[in-house]
Amino acid sequence: MSADTTITTPPVGEGGGGGGASPAHVIIVGGGFAGLALVRRLAKARRRGRLDVRVTLIDRRNHHTFQPLLYQVATAGLQTQDVGISLRAILRHQDVEIRLGEVTGVDTVGHVVTLADGARLSYDHLVIAAGAITEDFGVPGVAEHAFGLKSLAEATMLRNQVLRRFEEASRALADGPADEDGTLSFVIAGGGPTGVELAGALAELVDLVVRRDHPSLDIDRVRIVLVEARDALLGGFSARSSRAALDGLQERGVDVRLEVGIASVTADHVTLTDGETIPARLVIWAAGVGASPIATLLGVTLGRGRRIPVDEHLRVVGIDDVFAVGDIAASEGADGQLLPQVAPVAIQHAGHVAQVLADAAKGRTTPAFRYRDKGSMATIGRASAVAELPGGLRMRGTIAWLAWLVLHLLMLAGFRNRVSVLLSWIWNYLRHDHSARLILDQREATTAETSRGPVTRSWAA
Amino acid sequence: MSADTTITTPPVGEGGGGGGASPAHVIIVGGGFAGLALVRRLAKARRRGRLDVRVTLIDRRNHHTFQPLLYQVATAGLQTQDVGISLRAILRHQDVEIRLGEVTGVDTVGHVVTLADGARLSYDHLVIAAGAITEDFGVPGVAEHAFGLKSLAEATMLRNQVLRRFEEASRALADGPADEDGTLSFVIAGGGPTGVELAGALAELVDLVVRRDHPSLDIDRVRIVLVEARDALLGGFSARSSRAALDGLQERGVDVRLEVGIASVTADHVTLTDGETIPARLVIWAAGVGASPIATLLGVTLGRGRRIPVDEHLRVVGIDDVFAVGDIAASEGADGQLLPQVAPVAIQHAGHVAQVLADAAKGRTTPAFRYRDKGSMATIGRASAVAELPGGLRMRGTIAWLAWLVLHLLMLAGFRNRVSVLLSWIWNYLRHDHSARLILDQREATTAETSRGPVTRSWAA
Repeated sequence: MSADTTITTPPVGEGGGGGGASPAHVIIVGGGFAGLALVRRLAKARRRGRLDVRVTLIDRRNHHTFQPLLYQVATAGLQTQDVGISLRAILRHQDVEIRLGEVTGVDTVGHVVTLADGARLSYDHLVIAAGAITEDFGVPGVAEHAFGLKSLAEATMLRNQVLRRFEEASRALADGPADEDGTLSFVIAGGGPTGVELAGALAELVDLVVRRDHPSLDIDRVRIVLVEARDALLGGFSARSSRAALDGLQERGVDVRLEVGIASVTADHVTLTDGETIPARLVIWAAGVGASPIATLLGVTLGRGRRIPVDEHLRVVGIDDVFAVGDIAASEGADGQLLPQVAPVAIQHAGHVAQVLADAAKGRTTPAFRYRDKGSMATIGRASAVAELPGGLRMRGTIAWLAWLVLHLLMLAGFRNRVSVLLSWIWNYLRHDHSARLILDQREATTAETSRGPVTRSWAA
Repeated sequence: MSADTTITTPPVGEGGGGGGASPAHVIIVGGGFAGLALVRRLAKARRRGRLDVRVTLIDRRNHHTFQPLLYQVATAGLQTQDVGISLRAILRHQDVEIRLGEVTGVDTVGHVVTLADGARLSYDHLVIAAGAITEDFGVPGVAEHAFGLKSLAEATMLRNQVLRRFEEASRALADGPADEDGTLSFVIAGGGPTGVELAGALAELVDLVVRRDHPSLDIDRVRIVLVEARDALLGGFSARSSRAALDGLQERGVDVRLEVGIASVTADHVTLTDGETIPARLVIWAAGVGASPIATLLGVTLGRGRRIPVDEHLRVVGIDDVFAVGDIAASEGADGQLLPQVAPVAIQHAGHVAQVLADAAKGRTTPAFRYRDKGSMATIGRASAVAELPGGLRMRGTIAWLAWLVLHLLMLAGFRNRVSVLLSWIWNYLRHDHSARLILDQREATTAETSRGPVTRSWAA
């Protein structure tokens, strides 16, 4: 332990330790599924007397983001705040110090984490759980023109853009001849679960809501194109599930393009790798994620997907006392393949690290991490989903959709959020509605006067 | 009628009229209380065959904002979208054309409204219902540094700022000596209902939530200062109600300053007119509103508060076929005073204009507009409010608070919003919570790469 190298020891949050030597300090970077699960596991181990640690959770945001439902925020099915949960609220009883900040440096020799605001926090054990970001794989124009879907801000902005398109099209219709400039064309890159769920929800938004909100608009002009480079949707699912997703989306009017990639994106069109050009002013990039740039701060050679190489105990290869868990870790399954970047992996990672720390405190060794597959699910639309559970159990249609709803409600942290999401789902289902369709753009305020955002207008001439 | 001067006639929305002459076109600018009420009244008159008009509602936003509850959004009691209601959703059955756009010009001779996007819409009757904006009365620094509270974007940004202050103070505490730079000082300018309600809710947020979310923070360092130039809070209420508000706020720790104004605001302090300087980095300006700048487009000499002068039928003085209703109209009560800029006035204005149009269609004259006072209410905090109803009925405490809750729920448009707000209120009351405390800043995304807001990060080196 290197507690003596402390440069700045936060004076707070020491309530956990008893008298005597100060407890080891665990810093967790990132409040996603892995970070939250680890905080809880460590708190539990501490309550049971198995471990004496002080825990600090660092996150750039003051909330956990429930990423599996971001696509419903982007398509106006859920309110933005339904899928964001205050970290201080959900971790209130866990005796953890929460620190809003962005990690800009890690001194793995001196055991110090540096934040953007200049603070330096020393650690005994560091756990990197910073997750993944949207990755463009170097496709030209994606960084400038496409929208990602990894945060509440992104989901909200995407919703603003989607809803604006229909307003613009209605306006063009009212003011002059119909345009063919791609205003009503939406291109989604990537046919994995995110792309499939987003395409299905967007088709549903058009069919249930836009049709009624904009009665003068010719709904047939709306075009939703889903582009997937592989020969099937939902890679990793069974062929039957992939086929069901394809059929389901096509029935809903989605134009699915398989075995073709996106060559480039501009402000008003997308060019596919087969040379076709699609006029489109809204492109959503769900074609891939890469590890958070924090991965580069450790100075190790990154693995596939630029993820951090870890050993069988999720320790960063070559660095003492640093773990990587969740989407940012290049953790392998029994087949030698990288594990998928999904919540169940992150949560099991966290459990393993907590076990390693508790065992180490008692001088015991821990069996190597082994992932237990929890299955996969994806919704296609209203009362339609595919689910593949361990043991070969497969479901489709309404039963899979109900299983999806229940599972996601249970995974969602915070009772208040669960109630709100459930209420929205019931409402939307019964009313055939997507009720959260506000264009809520903070830039209307931020650009008004100054960057700080005051909004009074001076009449003093 | 001047229907023949039409320059661009929108081809849609003509379903209302039967055969023969095309119905008169009523354009309403603004979807606030007045605009919504007028759309509904006109639709009702049309359904009953009393009036043959085509109606277009123009608004800058796609939603109605329920301004009376914005202070609860700013203090994390309600979610942002709880108090915003999609115009297309609530007006779905009213046969109205909704047009997103900003009015930049009115040709009162040619009967044409010009929008920022270049569209020109002709009208037979124009109703200006654009509401009010925050007015700084020329106080230096307010436009640059103070926050208003008139839109969802403003309320959300204010909430972000409030929650950030506590994070910053916690961080300063953890990283070094306590600061005395005004991080935890909040100055609210204006002791009317908005200022009083905001001060009370902020004090409650601190007492119920911050105390638990930031256990290491010394709550006594938080300072909420309410500054009112007059000698009592809640001007217009009875002396007893004003006194109850003062007592209630002081009990909750609010530092109320009467008979003093704000001389200037800077980034880190406020100077009062008595020379005192208060270190404060968050100033909320609830000291006054002025008419929307749209008022200047008519070319008439504006009245007090820069409001549009109107006659006894709310017709703009000196201009044919243009009405002004709600906060933007300088409408006088029986005592010759300007009517207050509140929802009941706006709604009664709208009813009168609908009546004038229906009567005119039948060649009848309408009695002059006369405001029927509906009373006033303001909450001070949890289970505490003051209410003054017509006929001298006054309530205080829990009963007034319950009346306030019920009335605001009924006034709130949209069943879905009512359910959501009621749920939040019950939750917050039972749990002593303000559950919507996310820092949700779209600028984190907008500033990331470009102004359009893409958020992928390119790894292509």
